[in-house]
Amino acid sequence: MLAGAGNAATRMGQALKEAGVDIVQVFNRSEESAQHLAGFLQAGFTTNPGSVVPDADLYIIAVPDDAIAAVVKDINAQDKFVVHTSGSVSMEILAPFALNYGVLYPLQTFSKERTVDFSTIPVCIEASSLRNLELLSLLASKISSDIRSIPSAQRKALHLAAVFACNFPNFMYAVAESIVHRANLDFDLLKPLILETARKVQSISPARAQTGPAFRGDTQIMDDHLEMLKQDPAIRELYKRISEEIPRLKK
Amino acid sequence: MLAGAGNAATRMGQALKEAGVDIVQVFNRSEESAQHLAGFLQAGFTTNPGSVVPDADLYIIAVPDDAIAAVVKDINAQDKFVVHTSGSVSMEILAPFALNYGVLYPLQTFSKERTVDFSTIPVCIEASSLRNLELLSLLASKISSDIRSIPSAQRKALHLAAVFACNFPNFMYAVAESIVHRANLDFDLLKPLILETARKVQSISPARAQTGPAFRGDTQIMDDHLEMLKQDPAIRELYKRISEEIPRLKK
Repeated sequence: MLAGAGNAATRMGQALKEAGVDIVQVFNRSEESAQHLAGFLQAGFTTNPGSVVPDADLYIIAVPDDAIAAVVKDINAQDKFVVHTSGSVSMEILAPFALNYGVLYPLQTFSKERTVDFSTIPVCIEASSLRNLELLSLLASKISSDIRSIPSAQRKALHLAAVFACNFPNFMYAVAESIVHRANLDFDLLKPLILETARKVQSISPARAQTGPAFRGDTQIMDDHLEMLKQDPAIRELYKRISEEIPRLKK
Repeated sequence: MLAGAGNAATRMGQALKEAGVDIVQVFNRSEESAQHLAGFLQAGFTTNPGSVVPDADLYIIAVPDDAIAAVVKDINAQDKFVVHTSGSVSMEILAPFALNYGVLYPLQTFSKERTVDFSTIPVCIEASSLRNLELLSLLASKISSDIRSIPSAQRKALHLAAVFACNFPNFMYAVAESIVHRANLDFDLLKPLILETARKVQSISPARAQTGPAFRGDTQIMDDHLEMLKQDPAIRELYKRISEEIPRLKK
């Protein structure tokens, strides 16, 4: 049983389905997305927690962090095996509501527009017992070749790191886009650079891959850049502060 | 003639050589790297500006920004066609020293360790005359399929955008690496996420691709993250300020 119908629920449901795992039911408060995902997964669906099937082997709660506790409570999971898929929520949030519980956290950014190859995504698992960990590991290995047993505290550090590895770089791309647009240039110009920067750190440590004016200590260029950013003081300040920290990579 | 023997000079020399362009000589102050690159390009080399060949069709100055003026002056380029390869230096820096001049700026990050496919790299060109622009365009089209005529002011905006598209994301990767290492985890875990984040914006605008706690307004998670960063106040402050700016993408 899969609770949720957002990007993460959709991509995980899809990967499980493709791996031959039978998803009996989708539960989601919004009927439209529940029905849509259920159709896609050839599963039943319900918007009523009281109608959730009582006999699934596993209940996967792939809903926003702040909705996890309410969902597992409402589906009455006392004697069930329940996992959530969050990077930042402790496994123990499930303890008051379920007999057997765990975490199945795929470390990736999901979007409606893009299908990702699930097999290369690291899947972090944690469970309330060794037997549950084995069951989760078996399931996870059907959808990914990179399964890691990672307890809550480490998973939280990983989630924080993911903000720096994904959300913040994406915001930097967005700033770059606004700069080229303001200069009547095309964002396409920057795409090979963005891709190569990400590819480089697949084989070289980012601490060694650092380049640019702040790393070289080129104050002339940095001053020019700060001058060009003066119409946007918040971004100017970010440029300044990030540039001040970059030299720490020189050791 | 190619001046310089760093990453940019090496990669451009290599691309030109592979495109069948004959590089007659490498000039570089350090003999070791001059000799090494010259050997690689089957070119002559010199460390003495007075010994630079007088009759090359083009003089490409691929040296650090603050060394460009000195190099073009020292090689006595009064009646020659000279270009530099910098993103941030105005073309007019060459005007006092050369009869014909221009810029050949490949928008990419180069490293010793990695060969990049030059053919997909946008090459920005600018020249002192229409005829020189045509000559540069002809040369650039031998090494890349993406040639753009971009004047100095726009090129400077592009270079600033490149800092946000490359240098700052790489620093964010480095912070992510230090966070996972501190938690005794492997940076490998983050690599698929980094790559997918860069791939996503090849087809979706970064302003639309933004995800994460700051974009969702999840203050609980952000507070947890700030707490986890308290041993590094500068990075904690960066986290806070970037997170404060991310909601501007919601329009």
